[in-house]
Formats: sequence, structure tokens, C-alpha cells
Amino acid sequence: MSRVTIDADDIRASLSRQTFMQVLGAEPVAISPGSVVLELPFRDDLCQQNGFLHAGVITSIADSACGYAALTLMDPGSDVLSVEFKVNMLEPAIGERFRAIGTVVRSGRTLTVCSGEVVALTDGKPDKQVALMQATMIARSPRTG
Amino acid sequence: MSRVTIDADDIRASLSRQTFMQVLGAEPVAISPGSVVLELPFRDDLCQQNGFLHAGVITSIADSACGYAALTLMDPGSDVLSVEFKVNMLEPAIGERFRAIGTVVRSGRTLTVCSGEVVALTDGKPDKQVALMQATMIARSPRTG
Amino acid sequence: MSRVTIDADDIRASLSRQTFMQVLGAEPVAISPGSVVLELPFRDDLCQQNGFLHAGVITSIADSACGYAALTLMDPGSDVLSVEFKVNMLEPAIGERFRAIGTVVRSGRTLTVCSGEVVALTDGKPDKQVALMQATMIARSPRTG
Amino acid sequence: MSRVTIDADDIRASLSRQTFMQVLGAEPVAISPGSVVLELPFRDDLCQQNGFLHAGVITSIADSACGYAALTLMDPGSDVLSVEFKVNMLEPAIGERFRAIGTVVRSGRTLTVCSGEVVALTDGKPDKQVALMQATMIARSPRTG
Repeated sequence: MSRVTIDADDIRASLSRQTFMQVLGAEPVAISPGSVVLELPFRDDLCQQNGFLHAGVITSIADSACGYAALTLMDPGSDVLSVEFKVNMLEPAIGERFRAIGTVVRSGRTLTVCSGEVVALTDGKPDKQVALMQATMIARSPRTG
Repeated sequence: MSRVTIDADDIRASLSRQTFMQVLGAEPVAISPGSVVLELPFRDDLCQQNGFLHAGVITSIADSACGYAALTLMDPGSDVLSVEFKVNMLEPAIGERFRAIGTVVRSGRTLTVCSGEVVALTDGKPDKQVALMQATMIARSPRTG
Repeated sequence: MSRVTIDADDIRASLSRQTFMQVLGAEPVAISPGSVVLELPFRDDLCQQNGFLHAGVITSIADSACGYAALTLMDPGSDVLSVEFKVNMLEPAIGERFRAIGTVVRSGRTLTVCSGEVVALTDGKPDKQVALMQATMIARSPRTG
Repeated sequence: MSRVTIDADDIRASLSRQTFMQVLGAEPVAISPGSVVLELPFRDDLCQQNGFLHAGVITSIADSACGYAALTLMDPGSDVLSVEFKVNMLEPAIGERFRAIGTVVRSGRTLTVCSGEVVALTDGKPDKQVALMQATMIARSPRTG
């Protein structure tokens, strides 16, 4: 596709406005057309009652990864909002670091469907898959707001 | 039902071990059999790129409300984990305060299905529904761990 | 709302073009703004391996009920398509007759979020809830196709 | 894994008891550990109002493919039930033939998470992806029933 889409700097700029990603300590590690990867170090204050990362934390980084993956294929000037997502928690979220990979499955003019995956990393390498997301994102064009 | 289930103090004790709820500033405001309500004040550091509460924050409090609603109907000594959930974002999450209401739809020996709702409050009153969740929770018995 | 929307006859006409509803034996029993109810008699040839109605049958009538509930609030001439849905099966689908109730939760210009419920009927009365759906529908306007 | 699981003949036998698959004309084309593939020819009487296969038909074959994929990894004598699933419709379901591929993502003692995909076939070859499913299945052991 030679179609002009949003570039990685714009994605990074928008992500930096997500104050919640900073509270979580999540940062982008890879941005390419149709795919965004975020990483998050484990922290004791992001847990549920058993000391696993809270399902909401896992979901948050998967949602941002999917949303920005969708945005990479949208027209310059567009913005993206989450319509809905569904997440299965596959394993207790224990680990040193967590990687959320958002991938576009189908990119439409209005709606984009993404698949998200969160893996726990040990020594920087994927150790186990902790969550699987299926998400629908919507484009907000620069004009329609 | 005169069946003995977990009491509200145990729910509150478990919730207080969810360190992430403290980071979010979420607190229980009502606990009864089959229902748990949490509230969260709006904060600028919990937002996405447009200054709305991040969908992950909304999801986190809905998940905890649903999980603990499920736990209220489980055997004493049980614990609860999220199997999966699906959330629709209905309106931009703007407001002074947000209330997540978790309600048990069907309580089984192993699995519990819950419905979750998040509403924005203005002057302490429900103003608009911002999210709807449908969630599956699983009981971990004191023995099976 | 005094806004002009699609009338019940148009809903009925569109439903009658859903050939699959005829194969299932599903018929509308109530149509009002924001709500559509379909019913289906139990049949041995619509089952899964244990003799319960197949989850796909339950889902099909819930999907049509939700889709047409969404259409009741759309502009005249619009059509509706399912974007996505999530269904929890709550009880084995055994019974004489099944009722699917689709209800609009939030109606937007493009997207409509619906809640669907399927109940088993005994002697014509609701006996137990067998499934719960949360669905997203999209409007296709007469012009955009 | 040298663990003994259900064999393909038992899967086929259970599938043949799903009367609804026969009504749809769906048949297994591949069964291997962790994966089941079903196919269905297009038929005019399985459609929604625009002449596309009804989303419920697509969902039905994806659900059966996922459920039996889960069953392939369960203990001999087990049965499987759908707990819940979520489906995104990606493209209008037009085509000559449809293939549903159910794949196990995580296999647990009680719960199995599957990914399902439905593709339209043209001249027997995958032409486009029409739906994506994420599903949770539960094992019923021969004893617990």
C-alpha cells in the first residue's frame, strides 16, 4: 500500500498524551504499520489480591497497543477510540516484564478490528502468554471530530 | 438462600490487597450478596490522549466490581479470578466521579457470570452510562488453590 | 423522541428476508422502539451433542433480536449489520420454546450497542435465562450502502 | 505430550450427534490435536436480509470448530460445553463455501481458550477472512457430568 497513513512520530506523540500509560510505566518498543508493541515492568502496586498484575493493567496495555496499531493505518490527522474489547486471562500475570502486542486484523474506513496479546518476559524473552484480546476500534477523522 | 457465603468484611479485606485499586483511588461504596459497587474520582493522570479516563481504568474498576460481586456468593475461604470480560465503551469517560456496579447474573459452583456497568456521576448523581461489561469469573476453593 | 425512525412493518419485512430465521422457525412476537422479541420452538434438529439447543441457534436469535432492536431506532431506509457480539451460555438450552429479547443500550448515529437475553419458556412463561449477549451493530444508511 | 486424549473418531462421533450441523450442512474436514476444521457450502436459506450468510450461521460453525478443538485435548470420556464466545464479523459472508478453523490457545484442566476463524473459499481456496472468534470452553468429565 502506498496510501499515506499516520507516521510513527505521530503515534508516539499521541501515546505520550496518554497520562495513564505513564502511571503504569508503559512505553512503546515497536511501531510499524498495523502493529504496536508496548512494554511494562512488573510493579507491586499494580496488582490484584494475589500479587498478580491486575487484569485491568493487562487490559490497559493491550487496549493501547491495539488502539495505536489501528491508528497506524488511519488517515493522517485521525484519532482513535476503543469501541469495545474482550480479553481472556490465560495465566496468572507474574513476571519481570510484560509485552503487549497489538495487531490489525482488518482495517476499514470507520472500524478496525485488532488482535492483542500480552506475554510475560523473563530475561527479556517471551515466557508465557498471559492474555488474549479481540478489539474493535473506531476512527475519528480530523473533520468529524 | 440461607447458604453461608463470604461476608462483606472479607470482601473488603481482599479488595484492600488489590494494590492497583489504591493507585487508581477506587473504593468500595456498597457490598451486598451478588453486588459490589466501587467509586473512583476523576484524575488527570488516568487519561487517554483526549483527556477522557482511559478505557483500561474504566475496565479495571468494572472488573474488580464484577469479581467481588461474584465472590460475595462463593463459599467462605474462596478466592476469585477473572476468566474473561468484554466491555463496550458507550460514551467518553468525562465526569467528576465514576461508579462501577458489578452484579451477578448467574452464580455456579465453578463459574459466575456478571454484568458490570460504569456510570459518570455529576454532583454525586448518575449522569450517563459510560461502559457496559459482561464478565466470567472463576472460584478458587480454599483447597484446590 | 419525536424523531422519525423505521416503523414496525419495515422491521417485519426485513426480518422476513432473513431466510435463516425461517429455517430455525423463529418469529417476531413484539417490536417496539429499542426492543425486538423473537420466539423459537424447540426442535430436535437444532441441537448439539447432548440434545440441548446448539449455542449457535441461541446466538442466532439473540443476534437477530439485537440487530432489529438497533434498526428500530435508525433513520428510515437504513439497514443494519452485526459488527460483533459476545454471548455467555448460562444454562443448558432445554425447554419447549425460547424467547430472545434484544434491547438497545445506546443508540448512536453509526454504532448501536444492544443487550440480548434468551430465556426458556415453560407453559408459555419464562422459566430460566439461558444466554446473555452484548452486541455492537452498525447502521448502513440508504446512501452510503 | 504423550498424554492420552480423545481420538479423532470420538470427535467425529460427537459431531455427528450435533443435529444442527447437519441442518447447516457442515462437515469436519480436518481433526488434529488442538485443531478442528469444519466446512459448509453457501445456501440461500441460511442468510440474513442482504443475502449474506447469517452471522449466527458463521458463529455456529466457529463455535463447533472451537468446541471440538478444545475436546481434542481433553481426557477420554470428557464432553465439552461452550461457556462463552465473542465474534467479530469482518466482511460480508458471501462465497461458495465457508471454512471454520478452531484452534486451542490455552488448554487447562477445566477451561480451554480457543481462537476461531471463518474464511470464505473461492475455487476451494481461502479468499477472505469473514469472522474472528475468541471462545472459552469447559470440560465435563465422565464422572462429574
